[in-house]
Amino acid sequence: MKYPNGKKSDVQCKPVRNTTHHDTSRRGMTLESEINKSNDYYLAYKIANIHKKPTPITIVNVSYPSRNKAKITEAYFKIPSTTDYNGIYKGRYIDFEAKECKSRTAFPFSSIHAHQINHLADVLSHGAIAFIIVRMAYYNTDYLIKAEDFLLYYNDTDRRSIPYNWIKDKGHVIANTYLIPVDYIKTIDDVYFKEELDD
Amino acid sequence: MKYPNGKKSDVQCKPVRNTTHHDTSRRGMTLESEINKSNDYYLAYKIANIHKKPTPITIVNVSYPSRNKAKITEAYFKIPSTTDYNGIYKGRYIDFEAKECKSRTAFPFSSIHAHQINHLADVLSHGAIAFIIVRMAYYNTDYLIKAEDFLLYYNDTDRRSIPYNWIKDKGHVIANTYLIPVDYIKTIDDVYFKEELDD
Repeated sequence: MKYPNGKKSDVQCKPVRNTTHHDTSRRGMTLESEINKSNDYYLAYKIANIHKKPTPITIVNVSYPSRNKAKITEAYFKIPSTTDYNGIYKGRYIDFEAKECKSRTAFPFSSIHAHQINHLADVLSHGAIAFIIVRMAYYNTDYLIKAEDFLLYYNDTDRRSIPYNWIKDKGHVIANTYLIPVDYIKTIDDVYFKEELDD
Repeated sequence: MKYPNGKKSDVQCKPVRNTTHHDTSRRGMTLESEINKSNDYYLAYKIANIHKKPTPITIVNVSYPSRNKAKITEAYFKIPSTTDYNGIYKGRYIDFEAKECKSRTAFPFSSIHAHQINHLADVLSHGAIAFIIVRMAYYNTDYLIKAEDFLLYYNDTDRRSIPYNWIKDKGHVIANTYLIPVDYIKTIDDVYFKEELDD
């Protein structure tokens, strides 16, 4: 297994939480906040129960200025050992990572921690529906990339990124509506459950 | 739906992370650290992929004393909207909360946030294997209580706690070995997968 974060990247791709999406049609929301809004909709309408995991941190110091509210005064971000999102849909375990990509030409592997790639492979082996959501910001398009396809490419290439042409070819475009800004459940229905019907 | 945290509790039951287990046979490990150790074993041996979620916090201030390491200087704990643990086993979505109970006589509902009880009910409706692990510290015994059983009792009682006798009767004792201190996967096999075989 390669360790993508050890490589220098030739294209820029930042983690979701540090990135603001500037397209006006998306009202300045980040990919993370749009997925959270979609998850809130799925939860409220009993469609699925999928949550973003809290950001993992190491807490060093906590003070107690009042009885009710502990205040964390020193803590550090940890490298996540899993993906950011998981939950359940139609009885299936769902697991994915989401990344926004500013490059027009490629999605760099360095955007995803090696731990997260290993995690996707592992949950797949247990029968998960696992994927990556990539927002190609320049094209204002979100793609669902099946972890199976991603891992095949990743394990078989010497490149440090996935070309945009591959993403267009293998990825599945995710619909964007006002109520469900990143409607990846609809894409799951098309990609995973239609396949099962076709069997 | 009742809101258990609004009620005053007649018995003491603290959240896992604040409690140290004092029985020497358990080497002073908390329930949380023992479940994490069990999850590490399940992960390493490709038995299951189940993780504790990070503690949810609200970050208010971050400083950058050096280039590499952002330091969180002000943050607060949030009330969790989901349970602490989830993942996948044998293709099934697994979801549970774990609590240590010091009382000899009952497990108080106030130990579990209302949000978490609603969450258990919701993931059940999507087809999850959902439960609560309760450590009855006085008896040095861990029980797996199916969310179905817990919710039936919870929604049908005026009590503020579950009597120990009910837990002994409806709960399923979890084995404790050196390598797997809280072997709840074995209990899942007995409770959920044998039931499926019996159908």
